[in-house]
Amino acid sequence: MPEQTRLTLTPGACIGILGGGQLGRMLALAAAKLGLSSHIFAPEADSPAFAVSATHTRAEYTDEAALARFAEAVDVITYEFENVPVETVRFLEALKPVRPGSKALDVAQDRLREKQLARSLGIETAGFMPVASAAALKSAVGSLDTPCVLKTRRFGYDGKGQVSIRKPEDAPAAWEALGGQPMGAEAPPLLAILEKFVPFTCEVSVIAARGLDGHFAAYDVTENEHRNHILHRSFVPSRLENNVTEAALSIARRLGEALDYVGVFAVEFFVLGAGEEARLIVNEIAPRVHNSGHWTMDGARTSQFEQHIRAVAGWPLGGTERLGSCEMINLIGKDVETWEKILAEPAACLHLYGKTEAREGRKMGHVNRCKKA
Amino acid sequence: MPEQTRLTLTPGACIGILGGGQLGRMLALAAAKLGLSSHIFAPEADSPAFAVSATHTRAEYTDEAALARFAEAVDVITYEFENVPVETVRFLEALKPVRPGSKALDVAQDRLREKQLARSLGIETAGFMPVASAAALKSAVGSLDTPCVLKTRRFGYDGKGQVSIRKPEDAPAAWEALGGQPMGAEAPPLLAILEKFVPFTCEVSVIAARGLDGHFAAYDVTENEHRNHILHRSFVPSRLENNVTEAALSIARRLGEALDYVGVFAVEFFVLGAGEEARLIVNEIAPRVHNSGHWTMDGARTSQFEQHIRAVAGWPLGGTERLGSCEMINLIGKDVETWEKILAEPAACLHLYGKTEAREGRKMGHVNRCKKA
Repeated sequence: MPEQTRLTLTPGACIGILGGGQLGRMLALAAAKLGLSSHIFAPEADSPAFAVSATHTRAEYTDEAALARFAEAVDVITYEFENVPVETVRFLEALKPVRPGSKALDVAQDRLREKQLARSLGIETAGFMPVASAAALKSAVGSLDTPCVLKTRRFGYDGKGQVSIRKPEDAPAAWEALGGQPMGAEAPPLLAILEKFVPFTCEVSVIAARGLDGHFAAYDVTENEHRNHILHRSFVPSRLENNVTEAALSIARRLGEALDYVGVFAVEFFVLGAGEEARLIVNEIAPRVHNSGHWTMDGARTSQFEQHIRAVAGWPLGGTERLGSCEMINLIGKDVETWEKILAEPAACLHLYGKTEAREGRKMGHVNRCKKA
Repeated sequence: MPEQTRLTLTPGACIGILGGGQLGRMLALAAAKLGLSSHIFAPEADSPAFAVSATHTRAEYTDEAALARFAEAVDVITYEFENVPVETVRFLEALKPVRPGSKALDVAQDRLREKQLARSLGIETAGFMPVASAAALKSAVGSLDTPCVLKTRRFGYDGKGQVSIRKPEDAPAAWEALGGQPMGAEAPPLLAILEKFVPFTCEVSVIAARGLDGHFAAYDVTENEHRNHILHRSFVPSRLENNVTEAALSIARRLGEALDYVGVFAVEFFVLGAGEEARLIVNEIAPRVHNSGHWTMDGARTSQFEQHIRAVAGWPLGGTERLGSCEMINLIGKDVETWEKILAEPAACLHLYGKTEAREGRKMGHVNRCKKA
């Protein structure tokens, strides 16, 4: 349906959002600011996004009847996380424009294809080898050498689906820990990737957007700190030198183009070394708004959520100008109990996601602290 | 219920909002940002706030059964406009905390009581006289002298419910134009106020907040321009000298205290003269978030909507620091057709209210243009 691929919305239109977590919630709020309504599709009854959208559908991503009704009710469709089944997106694409499309999702869901794409564009990644059996893992550890990290190709997040291998003898246990079968056992293969460990000096990300017209706009490079594999803190400006940030933005642009991307996406990097000689290693591409871009809600001209809505609506991208220096801290699990203290800080901007239960490791909210430039 | 008067909310609580227009919509969006849910109560089926709140009740403000169910469903109640019947608020106050309370509403609904309050605090207003008959109007015009303005005491907004009287002979026609009966006719009296015309050099407003603990916080004085009696443009900083802005903030503080106010309110002023000798004449008090405070959404640390939610929740007020210079332009009626042009401006922040029909004089959205300080 070529006429649909260029469809642009008018205010009053409805954006369908697959996924009802905090990212879907903040997307729906951004849509409302622009006079658009939203319709959330998610399986979980307590989806935080349901409370801020005009309509929602609670159904499984495999429920084609529900998906068809959802597509009928909306003007354009997007998703808030990359673990939506690609079949769901392909099914919907036949009915309504889905932005970003299944091509980007298909690549970004798979650590192997992600790295292959980067390499094909001449972009540096960690050394890697696909691994689909305990025997293949043994041989891969032999060629990449330790330390390395075994990861599932799909559905990993926040450190889930990965195991470190510090010495070759760890390999069989790592394989089993990830859910693979011991050598010789009969079972559906675990599709994994072995990655060479990168002794990074810091981690950074680029939050970028590509419009329906191919226009590219990126925010300043964000520096990130993780705790227990979960993002803890992001800040801008990063400590990178200008030539390195330029290189990071250029990599994001090339990846966005290669994926025919429409919307906001994130590219996570490991940084090797420091100063002007620092090397950038692409770690992951997230085909969605990203936790390390939450600072843009208070620290940039246009938030990443509004930026994504603009792109998905086929509208011009907003300004990505940074308004000052900014730090974002995630409120994970019981961290959220500090909400009153945060509210009492004059320069803190508190964002809570409306989740009732503060389970360990659960992202409950975040706080941005910004200073004028 | 004294224990209720000090009630503070915890995230996850529900704020009931009387009124479903754009102000209710932006309040609901601000509540969501802070992890609160909202329940809109409004009579109009196409209320823009319904689309962004978890729950809504569509009923008349006089429907006590619906009001009682609404009170039962929420934790605290507020209102987005001052023309909610005071009886509605009194009925609800017996069931749940209402912030700001009926006292503030009662005064702010009535141009006469508003001016009497200001005068009782030694705050300057235009000369005025209550008028309840054509004969009383004639005599009032005699004592105040022309030019003057006849206004209904209640339910005026955007220039509705007011007529200018340029010379004494205009008085009878003005009386009838406002809906009063000719001299000698038997009818319920029109309650009006005659105000001396103020030859102002400019109009300004103070958007201020008072917390449950009595803490006061105001934004920088905003300068306002009207077209056809409707706010067209607001900007900060205003052109007032520091001593005059200090005086304006002090007046707002005293009015807030006198009204035991909780929440955001606006005080509109006429300015007479210029420079350090400029005089401030209180024109009106709005017991709610205010159109001339919309710049705070992009130009201040905390938006007026979040500030109101914080106050109503019993939470600490947010920082009111201005982030730069900022201009707000209302998009009235067909002005909204420029939305695409505005989206293409990198430094413009567009806000649309989700209204479907762009009727003449209808507020459809606004745009903020901010520059770093």
